[in-house]
Amino acid sequence: MTSTVGQVIRCRAAVAWEAGKPLVMEEVEVAPPQANEVRVKILFTSLCHTDVYFWEAKNPLFPRIYGHEAGGIVESVGEGVTDLKPGDHVLPVFTGECKECAHCKSEESNMCDLLRINTDRGVMLNDGKSRFSINGKPIYHFVGTSTFSEYTVIHVGCLAKINPLAPLDKVCVLSCGISTGLGATLNVAKPAKGSTVAVFGLGAVGLAAAEGARIAGASRIIGVDLNSNRFEEAKKFGATEFVNPKDYNKPVQEVIAEMTNGGVDRSVECTGNIDAMISAFECVHDGWGVAVLVGVPHKDAVFKTHPMNLLNERTLKGTFFGNYKPRSDLPSVVEKYMSKVQ
Amino acid sequence: MTSTVGQVIRCRAAVAWEAGKPLVMEEVEVAPPQANEVRVKILFTSLCHTDVYFWEAKNPLFPRIYGHEAGGIVESVGEGVTDLKPGDHVLPVFTGECKECAHCKSEESNMCDLLRINTDRGVMLNDGKSRFSINGKPIYHFVGTSTFSEYTVIHVGCLAKINPLAPLDKVCVLSCGISTGLGATLNVAKPAKGSTVAVFGLGAVGLAAAEGARIAGASRIIGVDLNSNRFEEAKKFGATEFVNPKDYNKPVQEVIAEMTNGGVDRSVECTGNIDAMISAFECVHDGWGVAVLVGVPHKDAVFKTHPMNLLNERTLKGTFFGNYKPRSDLPSVVEKYMSKVQ
Ligand SMILES: NC(=O)c1ccc[n+]([C@@H]2O[C@H](COP(=O)([O-])OP(=O)(O)OC[C@H]3O[C@@H](n4cnc5c(N)ncnc54)[C@H](O)[C@@H]3O)[C@@H](O)[C@H]2O)c1
Ligand SMILES: NC(=O)c1ccc[n+]([C@@H]2O[C@H](COP(=O)([O-])OP(=O)(O)OC[C@H]3O[C@@H](n4cnc5c(N)ncnc54)[C@H](O)[C@@H]3O)[C@@H](O)[C@H]2O)c1
Ligand SMILES: [Zn+2]
Ligand SMILES: [Zn+2]
Ligand SMILES: [Zn+2]
Ligand SMILES: [Zn+2]
Repeated sequence: MTSTVGQVIRCRAAVAWEAGKPLVMEEVEVAPPQANEVRVKILFTSLCHTDVYFWEAKNPLFPRIYGHEAGGIVESVGEGVTDLKPGDHVLPVFTGECKECAHCKSEESNMCDLLRINTDRGVMLNDGKSRFSINGKPIYHFVGTSTFSEYTVIHVGCLAKINPLAPLDKVCVLSCGISTGLGATLNVAKPAKGSTVAVFGLGAVGLAAAEGARIAGASRIIGVDLNSNRFEEAKKFGATEFVNPKDYNKPVQEVIAEMTNGGVDRSVECTGNIDAMISAFECVHDGWGVAVLVGVPHKDAVFKTHPMNLLNERTLKGTFFGNYKPRSDLPSVVEKYMSKVQ
Repeated sequence: MTSTVGQVIRCRAAVAWEAGKPLVMEEVEVAPPQANEVRVKILFTSLCHTDVYFWEAKNPLFPRIYGHEAGGIVESVGEGVTDLKPGDHVLPVFTGECKECAHCKSEESNMCDLLRINTDRGVMLNDGKSRFSINGKPIYHFVGTSTFSEYTVIHVGCLAKINPLAPLDKVCVLSCGISTGLGATLNVAKPAKGSTVAVFGLGAVGLAAAEGARIAGASRIIGVDLNSNRFEEAKKFGATEFVNPKDYNKPVQEVIAEMTNGGVDRSVECTGNIDAMISAFECVHDGWGVAVLVGVPHKDAVFKTHPMNLLNERTLKGTFFGNYKPRSDLPSVVEKYMSKVQ
């Protein structure tokens, strides 16, 4: 096999030509990586709601290659890339870590100024152009990853180098929702051993948040979902009790306060629904309760609460990607999976 | 002088007979302390907005003796009181610390279940009756302190035993607004050395919050007030810059974000105004900013913000009495004053 380094690679990709229309398998050209870029051979990729959301949305960035939960192997690196070399196993991440901005230098933030998610950008930072084309016609990138392609080009700051023994078909899902939920609990809500935790929304993100509460040693993990079919699955991730708000004719925060002698110690909202966000906040105990918002809200949503709920010493926080820094922290999430830390 | 222990004491008090009508100096009878109560000779008392607010309000608890920022000396103690003895110097506090409830046992909360402020109660907990009377007619207590009287009866949990060398005429003001503002910054916002802090409202509480930021080593302390006359005074308490929202035709959070390259590290709201609360939250930096609400809002006020402001990793907290536990922590605030810790 001749080396592909420095060459355009022709490979197959699932291209979205128009909003809401089926993706089409096409042969695309993938240009070599430029400065601070890496070309990755994608071995496994999964589908997330965020892909679907932007594929459905009427925005001007078509044709585009979606996909952002994946696992792959470095094919070649561009100028200035020293952290990665061909053959390294990597997880592409929709947000990045430049290691130089105020956010990257802060212990508290993972919202990199340079590489923070930008769903409006369809090109690479280095030259403002795409690395994908079909017969010379550019195809836009998506959140810097575009993993629905056999090869893709990614900024080095959006790649986590992971243990090469980790099965890429499994750990590829750690690059988005799972780490988001797990980190929301472990890094942000930080429940103490023996505490009570409510998790709103039991999709992938909420299940991972419940798992985080189990790892932290919570004594009660209350799963809240409008869909009772989620409860069976949630048991496997540590949930010990369930509340379907539809089963009550009072606000779910009151139901939870009654179940827990005044409120839970921690809550994690993983729905994207504004009412659930408000309930998740108002169901934490006064004096010490902490609520963490994870779900991505509707653009017109307004969070409303009486300020007394705050003055009574409740804390409200939000998190992005579970406060994990992609390059610094994601490898350890993979190790958690590898060592089955529980 | 014969002992007054166990006797009714006759002394002078400023009695509010009706909402909004001038207080009248009267001779009142003060009954001996019952179980867990302490009778205190008040030497100094100051006036706080909260006294005025409830004196103005049309509520059924008249006649009443107001006053809650004071310093005094224990005259006698009731059954079961072991922490205090006659002669001890004390600061009465409008909220208390029973040392037994979940809040008192939590390191994070000071919102004692038993003795938390209750402006609707005008009687003592032990027997549901008042210790004050005029010719046998009961006069109601106010927030468990009623310091506008030469003698008053207070639950032992609402008394901080302080250094007897502390000048009571000065430290009496530490029992309410000053500790509230100071603690909001030092205990809750916790600015790091060198950080930027915005203080909304430069009344007594806000000045103390600014002082807290100065003690913590903040590099920039931005005072925000609608009344520019407050700025000169605020300089003495560490404020380095000033913003009057009226001087701009854009929201003050935008003005502050521009001054600080994206927002302050910490903000402390000390106005009670809901718009200031929202601005104080929205002016903190994404990724790591923490906003602390202190002001007591109007009962119909609604805190509103777009949830993205939270998801971008801002934290919103509220505090009550600066998170100080009255008995455990207030003595150390008095020591701070005594040693002029800066
Ligand atoms: N999936 C990801 O990769 C990812 C990453 C970061 C953030 N997020 C955000 O996290 C949220 C959850 O993601 P997901 O993939 O788990 O979604 P999901 O749709 O699989 O799960 C959401 C769950 O919330 C439930 N729900 C909706 N409204 C509710 C309400 N008012 N009360 C209680 N339950 C309610 C739904 O029934 C559903 O089971 C979304 O807002 C998503 O945008 C997702
Ligand atoms: N004073 C206390 O003992 C005490 C104790 C606990 C809590 N609180 C609460 O803290 C708050 C402040 O108390 P204080 O005694 O310092 O009050 P204060 O009235 O002396 O000071 C409040 C300041 O806020 C300013 N202000 C009002 N609205 C504003 C706005 N929208 N933007 C900017 N500035 C604004 C006012 O001009 C004033 O200078 C009140 O809500 C009070 O109830 C007070
Ligand atoms: Zn995703
Ligand atoms: Zn960065
Ligand atoms: Zn006061
Ligand atoms: Zn208590």
